[in-house]
Amino acid sequence: MLDGVLEAKERGEVKTSMSMAEIQVEVDAETEDNPTKVLICVNQSSIKGYPHPSLSSVDAFEWILKNLVKKSCRHLFKLCFLHVEVPDEDGFDDMDSIYASPDDFKNLKNREKIRGLHLLEFFIRRCHEIGVPCEGWIRKGDPKEQICHEVKKIHPDILIVGSRGLGPVQRIFVGTVSEYISKHADCPVLVIKRKVEDTPEDPVDD
Amino acid sequence: MLDGVLEAKERGEVKTSMSMAEIQVEVDAETEDNPTKVLICVNQSSIKGYPHPSLSSVDAFEWILKNLVKKSCRHLFKLCFLHVEVPDEDGFDDMDSIYASPDDFKNLKNREKIRGLHLLEFFIRRCHEIGVPCEGWIRKGDPKEQICHEVKKIHPDILIVGSRGLGPVQRIFVGTVSEYISKHADCPVLVIKRKVEDTPEDPVDD
Repeated sequence: MLDGVLEAKERGEVKTSMSMAEIQVEVDAETEDNPTKVLICVNQSSIKGYPHPSLSSVDAFEWILKNLVKKSCRHLFKLCFLHVEVPDEDGFDDMDSIYASPDDFKNLKNREKIRGLHLLEFFIRRCHEIGVPCEGWIRKGDPKEQICHEVKKIHPDILIVGSRGLGPVQRIFVGTVSEYISKHADCPVLVIKRKVEDTPEDPVDD
Repeated sequence: MLDGVLEAKERGEVKTSMSMAEIQVEVDAETEDNPTKVLICVNQSSIKGYPHPSLSSVDAFEWILKNLVKKSCRHLFKLCFLHVEVPDEDGFDDMDSIYASPDDFKNLKNREKIRGLHLLEFFIRRCHEIGVPCEGWIRKGDPKEQICHEVKKIHPDILIVGSRGLGPVQRIFVGTVSEYISKHADCPVLVIKRKVEDTPEDPVDD
């Protein structure tokens, strides 16, 4: 499956959709026609790297399933997962690689894509297991800009972002995507802070 | 009904609850035991005054019903309406009143209470009409502090606030409760901005 998706991404977009054939629920016609479109921004763990989702992404996802997209209402929602790949400017991850031909760089790009897709796969697989309609795709660039851009494009009913819940001092240096989005995205924004008990010793880790 | 509630408020708290006896839905046992507790902050209109709810409060309420608390899922949620009454320091509303005895001030206090209750009544009545479990109460003081305090006390699953969606210049002078709460409240916070088409000529009006 990943190969086909990679080709789709070459064309600028990756979308993987799933149907809800398994689920039989008595549905209100008015709401079934218009499922609530939930855009969820997910990123990789700053501790474990790709393809591991960050603590704040997983927290936000679990919160949604527990509190909004409940068992008997799953068909009334559509979860859209957006992962913004940040260009690896310092190339730290590739310090041990040797580049001898143009093909080596091509392989590198493919590797990046596969990482991002594995991250999405985590969420799409989980949704599929429990029968939540979903799709996911990847963008590359500055997360703040890309997320606001996608909101303008797909018009979600709600945008949900996890937040590391940094203190005021850390926030100055790290900056928070969630604060920016809350102000600038053209739709209601829900910020879900990481649970205190799940916060690593260094709260910058995620 | 209002009299009894007023007495309850004398004791420091007003809560009006409604049951869902009318509604018969097949319910998932796991989720029915734990309805999602939604705390919604509502305030009066800055144009029309009490007991008219502000545009941003009504927008937020309508958004919730359309996108989260859908027809077939209403029993899985509990809407808690909090209205924070801001002490009327300049007494502008009472410029035309004449005070001649201590009783006049007592009447004034009662009038304030009744206004706040009429505001809550708007939302509670609407929930009752469509069968959404709900309760509402009033606090007095600084909205930012009072809202964060109530979050600590009742542990909502989600806090929803409307926002006037002011521009950067207006924000400096007016300040926004929603921004403060997003940072400081101990639960996920959803900010629902006012729709552009509903914004009055002066966006400070609400």
